[in-house]
Amino acid sequence: MQGAILVLSGPSGAGKSTIINHAAPQIGEYYFSISTTTRQPRDGEQDGVDYYFVTHEQFEEGIKAGDFLEYATVHGNYYGTSLKPVNTALEEGKLVIFDIDVQGHRLVRAKMGDYVTSAFITPPTLAELEKRLYARATDDKSIIERRVKNAEEEIHAVNEFDFVIINDEIPKAAAEFATIANAARLKQSSEELENLVNTWHN
Amino acid sequence: MQGAILVLSGPSGAGKSTIINHAAPQIGEYYFSISTTTRQPRDGEQDGVDYYFVTHEQFEEGIKAGDFLEYATVHGNYYGTSLKPVNTALEEGKLVIFDIDVQGHRLVRAKMGDYVTSAFITPPTLAELEKRLYARATDDKSIIERRVKNAEEEIHAVNEFDFVIINDEIPKAAAEFATIANAARLKQSSEELENLVNTWHN
Repeated sequence: MQGAILVLSGPSGAGKSTIINHAAPQIGEYYFSISTTTRQPRDGEQDGVDYYFVTHEQFEEGIKAGDFLEYATVHGNYYGTSLKPVNTALEEGKLVIFDIDVQGHRLVRAKMGDYVTSAFITPPTLAELEKRLYARATDDKSIIERRVKNAEEEIHAVNEFDFVIINDEIPKAAAEFATIANAARLKQSSEELENLVNTWHN
Repeated sequence: MQGAILVLSGPSGAGKSTIINHAAPQIGEYYFSISTTTRQPRDGEQDGVDYYFVTHEQFEEGIKAGDFLEYATVHGNYYGTSLKPVNTALEEGKLVIFDIDVQGHRLVRAKMGDYVTSAFITPPTLAELEKRLYARATDDKSIIERRVKNAEEEIHAVNEFDFVIINDEIPKAAAEFATIANAARLKQSSEELENLVNTWHN
């Protein structure tokens, strides 16, 4: 059994981490893809856990070397996904989970669509998203406003995803996520199907 | 929550019914689509259970009236799926399961792709399929040979399906089927997604 990719997108504040943590016991082993970024670590963020923190120069060398599966600049900082750990996890037959934005989803699907199942996670309404972002009180008002604005745009991309999870009640959303993750593991690549057909007649 | 369609295809002898029966307790309520045919009932087959048995004339009237979601002629007999019970089940929010061939899958996907998840179920090899068909000893040699010949052609359509289930061990295949069926229920139609986007900003 080869690995599979599950892309999760959705606004900051949608509850992605909470859902993954709740669903974890039902989905078996997975590799959560860690992004690489040039932005400064925030309080409490650890290198190799929250992000791989690198310099602008290091990131651009990585781009030139073709190290990134996808990358983008957001507010002057680079964010990207290194290809190598993803390929290693896939070769080990693992489910690789990405938490990336809708642009990242497009790039990953374009490059590795054969392996990809995707889900967009969102609170039921924009008003609920705003409420949650203000309630958790970890961000400045300007950051929250930017996140809300991004969410208003990103919601229009829901039709590009295989599934949409409305995070209204956490246990329900986590159960849906587990079902989707387990189905994602069953997805076969074109290569696997070709092998199946070739060996089937023997 | 609206309904969803799960199309199952695969050679006669792949173990589709066995898998569905094993998985049933894990997949909740579903409507198993009953095909309509002009062929004669075999021993033990019941009208309204195994098939809806109709005359050639009745079937052709149905075609003219647009009653069929899909139909085909096989060895001089019509086989088809009436649209009405499918629509009723979908409106009731049920998962509708079809056991149809790869041609039927193409037609259902073309007409109702928005609702469709599909799985091709097959024994691991052609040799294993032949062994199973001869072992169950319910069919004449000529029928078995025809089924084997059909299977040899149909296997080339596996890449048209969302999932392929290799029925090697029944409990494993049934668990995979249950995961796929439960994921199928989560698939949203374009209409649902449009509604989501439209109401999300309120």
